[in-house]
Amino acid sequence: MKEADAIVFGSHILTMDDDDRIIEDGAVVIQGRNIIDLGGRRQIEESYTAREIIDGSGCLVMPGLINGHTHAAMTYFRGLADDLELMDWLNNYIFPAEARFVNREFSYLGTLLACAEMIKSGTTTFCDMYIFEDEIARAAKEAGMRCLLGEVIFDFPSPNTKTPEEGLAYTEMLIKKWAGDPLVNIVVEPHSLYTCSDTLIRDAKILADRYGVFLATHYLETDTEYQRLVQVYGRSPSHFLDEIGALNDRFLAFHCVFLREEDIRLFADRGCSVIHNPESNMKLASGVAPVPDMLSRGVTVGLGTDGCASNNNLDMFQEMDSAAKLHKVHRLDPTVMDAPSVLKMATRDGARALGMDDTVGRLKTGAKADLLVIDLDKPHLTPLYNLRSHLVYAVNGSDVKTVLIDGRIVMRDRKLLTIDEGAVMENVNRIAGEIRKSLEVR
Amino acid sequence: MKEADAIVFGSHILTMDDDDRIIEDGAVVIQGRNIIDLGGRRQIEESYTAREIIDGSGCLVMPGLINGHTHAAMTYFRGLADDLELMDWLNNYIFPAEARFVNREFSYLGTLLACAEMIKSGTTTFCDMYIFEDEIARAAKEAGMRCLLGEVIFDFPSPNTKTPEEGLAYTEMLIKKWAGDPLVNIVVEPHSLYTCSDTLIRDAKILADRYGVFLATHYLETDTEYQRLVQVYGRSPSHFLDEIGALNDRFLAFHCVFLREEDIRLFADRGCSVIHNPESNMKLASGVAPVPDMLSRGVTVGLGTDGCASNNNLDMFQEMDSAAKLHKVHRLDPTVMDAPSVLKMATRDGARALGMDDTVGRLKTGAKADLLVIDLDKPHLTPLYNLRSHLVYAVNGSDVKTVLIDGRIVMRDRKLLTIDEGAVMENVNRIAGEIRKSLEVR
Repeated sequence: MKEADAIVFGSHILTMDDDDRIIEDGAVVIQGRNIIDLGGRRQIEESYTAREIIDGSGCLVMPGLINGHTHAAMTYFRGLADDLELMDWLNNYIFPAEARFVNREFSYLGTLLACAEMIKSGTTTFCDMYIFEDEIARAAKEAGMRCLLGEVIFDFPSPNTKTPEEGLAYTEMLIKKWAGDPLVNIVVEPHSLYTCSDTLIRDAKILADRYGVFLATHYLETDTEYQRLVQVYGRSPSHFLDEIGALNDRFLAFHCVFLREEDIRLFADRGCSVIHNPESNMKLASGVAPVPDMLSRGVTVGLGTDGCASNNNLDMFQEMDSAAKLHKVHRLDPTVMDAPSVLKMATRDGARALGMDDTVGRLKTGAKADLLVIDLDKPHLTPLYNLRSHLVYAVNGSDVKTVLIDGRIVMRDRKLLTIDEGAVMENVNRIAGEIRKSLEVR
Repeated sequence: MKEADAIVFGSHILTMDDDDRIIEDGAVVIQGRNIIDLGGRRQIEESYTAREIIDGSGCLVMPGLINGHTHAAMTYFRGLADDLELMDWLNNYIFPAEARFVNREFSYLGTLLACAEMIKSGTTTFCDMYIFEDEIARAAKEAGMRCLLGEVIFDFPSPNTKTPEEGLAYTEMLIKKWAGDPLVNIVVEPHSLYTCSDTLIRDAKILADRYGVFLATHYLETDTEYQRLVQVYGRSPSHFLDEIGALNDRFLAFHCVFLREEDIRLFADRGCSVIHNPESNMKLASGVAPVPDMLSRGVTVGLGTDGCASNNNLDMFQEMDSAAKLHKVHRLDPTVMDAPSVLKMATRDGARALGMDDTVGRLKTGAKADLLVIDLDKPHLTPLYNLRSHLVYAVNGSDVKTVLIDGRIVMRDRKLLTIDEGAVMENVNRIAGEIRKSLEVR
């Protein structure tokens, strides 16, 4: 008998591994941060004992979800202003509130709230772009969440950095400070091609190369952006990115609603990844990203919620449901974006997109122990014919019962163990009260 | 001091009344089946005592949601087959399973499961079309749910009725049997114009008129149906319906994805109502119903989930979220289908569509006491700027804490009081096991 730290039992173990294996009545064995074995209940019981036993009878055990694009601290702006034209929304609500309120404490507390929401809805890894990312790293670390974080950099000042140079220097500081951290990873994140000079994009790319980290940006989110960039560059801006060598397997593009066929081929050839944000694209009326085409060309596509201001939640289960349904009605084809494909986007493909292919997104020996226990014993999950269909079309975030990240139990039986939920909500509500007053929102 | 049966206190009372009033820190007073008063906490506390006090501190109190179109007993087929062409799905999965398994017990138990799910996600009234509706009435009554039910009638035999005449006779039996029932209402429901002869539609209309009940049908759900009907009638089938006098304020049409401008005008002129089912229309790739046009022309539009086989849940909160977002991206306009409009569809407009305008869908003195207590003290509902935005874009069914229907508490603190949830799930799982075997679904 070998001694392990923890064993998680489940009625179904959905591995998302290369063979797409489902182990009925199985178990996952954890030692330290890692999965060291998994298999049928009997086999595991005969080989291991553990101090910590998590009994997922009647439950599904699966990899934690990967939220590939969000602005965690924007939880403050959830429902602040909806159903508005993009520029009205940005210029009259989001930008003024950010200019006035964003500081270290804001980013830290807003991210803690986001982490509480994400863990409670089954997300174990998130990719973030915002301001004061060192505080966001601190919050994520405290919450015990895995993350890929980058300070937003653009041509104008932010509450944290006055110039693009300061933005790059801050990012370099983050890269050095968090190097080797088991949970926090850093990415270079120029905001977009329409808010960054060519020089800034080049410099960001050089910085990413110097440290071998990812370069990520908002890309072709709206038609206005696409039209403007084509005018500036005389052709698809993807060619500019390719000329400066930015398009490679460490390039990550958010949204990509207006990615055309030539861009998709280029992305596929160069090994770039895309994060799809269907609910944000729907709510802001940006358009429908050509995800089925990206997938058929072999581009790696992950899934993200975007920030709370444009969604208005961080529930990746709802995001999967929307992703599967949106493309069906858009293409008038009920067979596109089937449940298994969408589930891959939220797990292993999302992990690959963030450069964590060997680490998370799958349950396999040697991977990090990031996993969910989902309670299936509920009316809205009865009967059960197909786990993947349930996960995409029927489960919602509140069905997640227990969550482990990096071998640590961060939520048990719906109770968060790393975050004082009540205190975090109280703090955010206090600041939200000030935001409300300042904007005279009723 | 007056003695009442129950008082429900809430931090926010969203009335959905004509003035769209929100009472902060208020209460709703219930006597028997009805709301007899509502107002500020202090005013109510000074005027009433009650045996039953429901303390909704930190909660929102609002009218129960109206699911305007479903096939409740189809819970059995949740996730049985997804991501398929419509005809493949129907002919190879749904129809064979129905032919073999649907009987009285099936309809009764499947509906009990649906009622459990609906109550737990905040639906208090549903409109149903299926087979053995007398059993569905029995289940709804047992669950304590309000409903408008009709036996599906078409040109071919069903497991319940061998001929259209039998279908009409069964419907007439239902009308007589359930006349005057406080919860169960009956509607005449020919399945659709493509499955019913003109004679059957006429006879159904005559039956509805004889008893002054609603006539409801699936209408223009797919392009194939639309094209075929235009070919048969030489113009929009709405004119046929109008010629036989079917289009009036007791006419209710489900889906209406291919309603054209002339149909919308006719529906508006005649006072017909529509139930919109965005998630089903998305998943089956039917198309996007012109709901913003219907609303601007003054057609009453309610919201429905359709059956579990094409959704795959009965959560009206998710349905609201999808309704608001789908039309924005479809029209490329973030201002259409704003949260207040969508919320009306799921409450007061839905009630009006089902002929229950004065009864439910609003909290007002004299209305039936059908209401929800929603727990807002959660990370994904923090902060709170706007209740309507939260309800459409952030709340999900599992945030519903307590539900009253017709003055009766049917769920308290997430515990169902009218349904033995475990037993119902066990029964449905047993039958689902047989369905699985018969279809050799893995």
